[in-house]
Amino acid sequence: MLTSGCQGNLSLKLGTFDEVAPVSDADGKALMALIEELFPICRSITGNGVRQTLQILQRYIRLEVNEVPSGTRVLDWTVPAEWNIRNAYIACPDGTRVVDFAASNLHIVQYSRPIDALMLLAELRPHLHTLPDHPDWIPYRTSYYTDNWGFCLTQRQLATLSDGLYRVVIDSDLTPGHLTYGELVIPGETDDTVLFSAHICHPSLANDNLSGIAVATMLARYLQAFRLRYTYRFLFIPGTIGSLTWLARNEDRVRQIAHGLVLSCLGDAGGMTYKQSRRGDAPIDRIVAHVLRQDEVPHRITSFVPYGYDERQYCSPGFDLPVGCLMRTPNGEYPEYHSSADNLSLLRPESLSHSFAVLRRIVAVIEGDALYRSSNPKGEPQLGRRGLYAAMGGQRAASSHQLALLWVLNLADGHHSLLEMAERAGLPFAAIRAAADALIGAELLEIVSA
Amino acid sequence: MLTSGCQGNLSLKLGTFDEVAPVSDADGKALMALIEELFPICRSITGNGVRQTLQILQRYIRLEVNEVPSGTRVLDWTVPAEWNIRNAYIACPDGTRVVDFAASNLHIVQYSRPIDALMLLAELRPHLHTLPDHPDWIPYRTSYYTDNWGFCLTQRQLATLSDGLYRVVIDSDLTPGHLTYGELVIPGETDDTVLFSAHICHPSLANDNLSGIAVATMLARYLQAFRLRYTYRFLFIPGTIGSLTWLARNEDRVRQIAHGLVLSCLGDAGGMTYKQSRRGDAPIDRIVAHVLRQDEVPHRITSFVPYGYDERQYCSPGFDLPVGCLMRTPNGEYPEYHSSADNLSLLRPESLSHSFAVLRRIVAVIEGDALYRSSNPKGEPQLGRRGLYAAMGGQRAASSHQLALLWVLNLADGHHSLLEMAERAGLPFAAIRAAADALIGAELLEIVSA
Amino acid sequence: MLTSGCQGNLSLKLGTFDEVAPVSDADGKALMALIEELFPICRSITGNGVRQTLQILQRYIRLEVNEVPSGTRVLDWTVPAEWNIRNAYIACPDGTRVVDFAASNLHIVQYSRPIDALMLLAELRPHLHTLPDHPDWIPYRTSYYTDNWGFCLTQRQLATLSDGLYRVVIDSDLTPGHLTYGELVIPGETDDTVLFSAHICHPSLANDNLSGIAVATMLARYLQAFRLRYTYRFLFIPGTIGSLTWLARNEDRVRQIAHGLVLSCLGDAGGMTYKQSRRGDAPIDRIVAHVLRQDEVPHRITSFVPYGYDERQYCSPGFDLPVGCLMRTPNGEYPEYHSSADNLSLLRPESLSHSFAVLRRIVAVIEGDALYRSSNPKGEPQLGRRGLYAAMGGQRAASSHQLALLWVLNLADGHHSLLEMAERAGLPFAAIRAAADALIGAELLEIVSA
Repeated sequence: MLTSGCQGNLSLKLGTFDEVAPVSDADGKALMALIEELFPICRSITGNGVRQTLQILQRYIRLEVNEVPSGTRVLDWTVPAEWNIRNAYIACPDGTRVVDFAASNLHIVQYSRPIDALMLLAELRPHLHTLPDHPDWIPYRTSYYTDNWGFCLTQRQLATLSDGLYRVVIDSDLTPGHLTYGELVIPGETDDTVLFSAHICHPSLANDNLSGIAVATMLARYLQAFRLRYTYRFLFIPGTIGSLTWLARNEDRVRQIAHGLVLSCLGDAGGMTYKQSRRGDAPIDRIVAHVLRQDEVPHRITSFVPYGYDERQYCSPGFDLPVGCLMRTPNGEYPEYHSSADNLSLLRPESLSHSFAVLRRIVAVIEGDALYRSSNPKGEPQLGRRGLYAAMGGQRAASSHQLALLWVLNLADGHHSLLEMAERAGLPFAAIRAAADALIGAELLEIVSA
Repeated sequence: MLTSGCQGNLSLKLGTFDEVAPVSDADGKALMALIEELFPICRSITGNGVRQTLQILQRYIRLEVNEVPSGTRVLDWTVPAEWNIRNAYIACPDGTRVVDFAASNLHIVQYSRPIDALMLLAELRPHLHTLPDHPDWIPYRTSYYTDNWGFCLTQRQLATLSDGLYRVVIDSDLTPGHLTYGELVIPGETDDTVLFSAHICHPSLANDNLSGIAVATMLARYLQAFRLRYTYRFLFIPGTIGSLTWLARNEDRVRQIAHGLVLSCLGDAGGMTYKQSRRGDAPIDRIVAHVLRQDEVPHRITSFVPYGYDERQYCSPGFDLPVGCLMRTPNGEYPEYHSSADNLSLLRPESLSHSFAVLRRIVAVIEGDALYRSSNPKGEPQLGRRGLYAAMGGQRAASSHQLALLWVLNLADGHHSLLEMAERAGLPFAAIRAAADALIGAELLEIVSA
Repeated sequence: MLTSGCQGNLSLKLGTFDEVAPVSDADGKALMALIEELFPICRSITGNGVRQTLQILQRYIRLEVNEVPSGTRVLDWTVPAEWNIRNAYIACPDGTRVVDFAASNLHIVQYSRPIDALMLLAELRPHLHTLPDHPDWIPYRTSYYTDNWGFCLTQRQLATLSDGLYRVVIDSDLTPGHLTYGELVIPGETDDTVLFSAHICHPSLANDNLSGIAVATMLARYLQAFRLRYTYRFLFIPGTIGSLTWLARNEDRVRQIAHGLVLSCLGDAGGMTYKQSRRGDAPIDRIVAHVLRQDEVPHRITSFVPYGYDERQYCSPGFDLPVGCLMRTPNGEYPEYHSSADNLSLLRPESLSHSFAVLRRIVAVIEGDALYRSSNPKGEPQLGRRGLYAAMGGQRAASSHQLALLWVLNLADGHHSLLEMAERAGLPFAAIRAAADALIGAELLEIVSA
């Protein structure tokens, strides 16, 4: 069970929705269990693997599943044919299967058209993909929008293939059907929306992106228990075509998105990486930077580049949404990326639970930030007679709680948000928020706007 | 005698009011002499120690002494009862005094209420304060706003106390009286005011803040001799309650404060520290930064934090005055801080005289800065025929005076102040000011506004 | 022959006017040949040496030669008398010439008045100039605006002079005549002008500034072959008085200058130095910084200082033109500066050709920059079906051409210029421009304004 399923009104009980959300072993185990269940499924940008995946997630969250017909125009694109695969192999004349889809989903180039043919190795060779630098790993390759077929195998497998005739079988369907995606909306006090988006199109790859799917699922499950200021929208979509489809079908909702994060690669042993939104100075960029800075785990903040995950679509110039991307080690920067080595052994339960905690802290800032005004702006109010200050003077330094009180009082001029106070004070948002709550309790502070 | 008491019109004689104010041995001696006279007095936030201190300062400057009755409301605070103490000790049954106020002002927690009682060490113990990490030092402790009493002693003294009965005597008054503070206004050509504020509430502590009191006094004495552009206001006030009292009584004057500095800890062996105003980019912040950058003594510039000295009050959001804090080693950052080790031996006469020189240089920038416009903005004017440029061409580099002339001519577009020119040129303000004076002499420059 | 004399419409054929302009051996040889021809001439701020120099340049470019009479008022200055020199020496009583102008143009202080006199070494001594730190070098000295005469010699020559009588002869004219300068205008589609300015007043000095003269000449010759968006104006002028004269005579044209560069010291072995315009953030400052950053040759960008070359005049506050200064090792920073050691042996043909290539790349950005708008701003357009994207997905990283396409599409919102895209992408301008051209070809992009 997740540790964090506490009920209640977030606005009133920020302490329970804490930015210092603990990293919990139980969360790590729950996240790993979900990933292990999802790992064997052969997902792609369409097809039954996606449906099966979403059905499993529905056991955790009230996910709505959408089906969009092949051929539907979405912005500059068209929803492709649906792809399903039953069986595929390369066999020697004696029937020995030298490459077999049954052994790994990755053995087949995604969206390979059906084939059943005999051919010489020389003819077959252009359809075989390996990773010469990692001779034991199978690469992950796709050909969604170009009519083609192919097999991925290890370099060692390829080396054993002698010249001669092979039977090549791909028992797949590539026919009109649907694109499937999942969506969950947790309504809040306002329509202002926080978007979390995870891609669900990768077959047996663990970090990219079962880690993102699992963390997003658990975060949604966690947030369902609270009364929230913002509306939260979770998307589980195939990469690129899924976000384009959602954007095309929700153009009227796009402007409601106040903050957003694409989630991927959240389970490896590395530190945190935050890729900023195209704007670079959106509130989400400041919020994530603050949370990561206050954490002990090393982190890196990188500028937006128009390559990566679905932030490419959310941040296209016609939308330019305040959506960043939260990862541990980014796509392309770990050797196992897009290969059979991105498997369950690459994941660390403590990384998954830490990523989950970081996201809860980010939500705590999103929910808890506000503008305040001091009721006694001229000089400091006398905190001592209100029991908020040390009785004995002359000590070398103030406690961090006293400092937080002084910072809030000093910056509560109606122009500094709690997040800005936390940044300027170099204190965690939760400490500043706790000070603000204490000062409200003492009638020294009033809220200006959330 | 101070070396710097030259008379005359500052605006016309900037050269004598020099930014490169020399560090003078005579100044160091005079500052030490004043501090030595003030050191033995038992000051607090009210009482006769403050009055006695101000009387000594009145021998140097035309200080006005203000008395504000106990019970007066000042902003969110109330002027407390006046505290005076005659005698205090802890004695063994045989009459031997094991802790005696006569030996050190610091032995008593400030604002201790009167007591005369016999008690066991166990009862006495919660009222005894030591510094375990510095077993030979007496801490400085206060309890201004909480009814209490206590003694401060060395850890070694405490260790010698055996269990048993002690007589505890504090012969103090804590009765309605007055809060006393000193104020000096040196009127200038305008009401725009430069504020210098020093706290006078600490008993026998040298760096914090007899150094600040002495340097402020000598600066005021020095400035009295000049005709000045700005009005200068010097405050000698008890910490916190004193600045709150002054602010409450002078709300209509607060907006006149164009620049301000709290002065403290100006005599130790460390380099200079400037703590910026809350605004961070006020003119005083740039002025002090420039003066310190041009000095050979190491310096540090720190951002505002709402903890420290009376800048906390001046920079509260309802006032938000352009007031920074000039120190050498800041409060809390030297081990002797708020203990009996902050005594005369901690002070360096050369540090005191250097701090005094830095303040004169700061005033030189405040008084001497202005906007100018070149009379020949198109191309350089021909300096050579006016005797302002080297006759022989082809030399490797220009002299720094020639560079200063060129910088002033280049930036004298009515938008760059002399300080901005000095910053951009990387030259001392005095060099830029001298160049501007030479160009005015050659009718190549005209003043736009001061 | 220069390699780069290709004809055609620049706007349409940016590929030939390439930012990755190659560094060509042939260019280096051609530049050296021109410098070698110019080196022996005794140039000054006026006189026949300037005329002779401009005549040689006219063999390369359609230079217009202007003559401005002595006594003409130019801004705060007056065009001086014209100076020509035929002969000068110092001779022993036996007639042996110990210093002889025939041996080096540098032996005479420029603008020395005529003299023919016998004098003792003691009388002569104040008129003799040496470089004690470099005993074998002759310094370069001038006295344009102060009536004087003098000789420059090596420290070793001076050491050999015994006391006694010397005959001193300077056979010069210093009489009303003209100031001569060259100007070339290459008209473009608009009157918006790019200014290149080189000083032509130095006698036999190679790096300062025959290198600048030669590179400017070859750049002008190169640009004459193109149809250009901007008008290009090349000035070959005596330092200071020449730029002042041009500015005084062209005040109505000054506002047309959109970008400008002073060219000097472009042939030594050092890396590139760009001295920013007074504004510091003018487009030319960003353009040059981008080109230098993308180059492998080390570079340095320095802030404007009002000392150096004619940028002093162009950037005076009454003009404040967007004119920087491009150099390799700056004036005064190499030991041979303004001495006989700044001779042909200091030059590197590969430095000259590299400087020339850098300038062509700068012009390529000036000419090729523009604002674009994506025709499909919502989401990425489907590049694959237009043949602009890799067919096989799942690769670790995108190619730099694909990245360039994505950057242009992402930033083509009508607010980001191609240069801004290149800066943000960290890609060369030429790569971004090529991507923009490809997208225009695919009708995915439209130009907003040049």
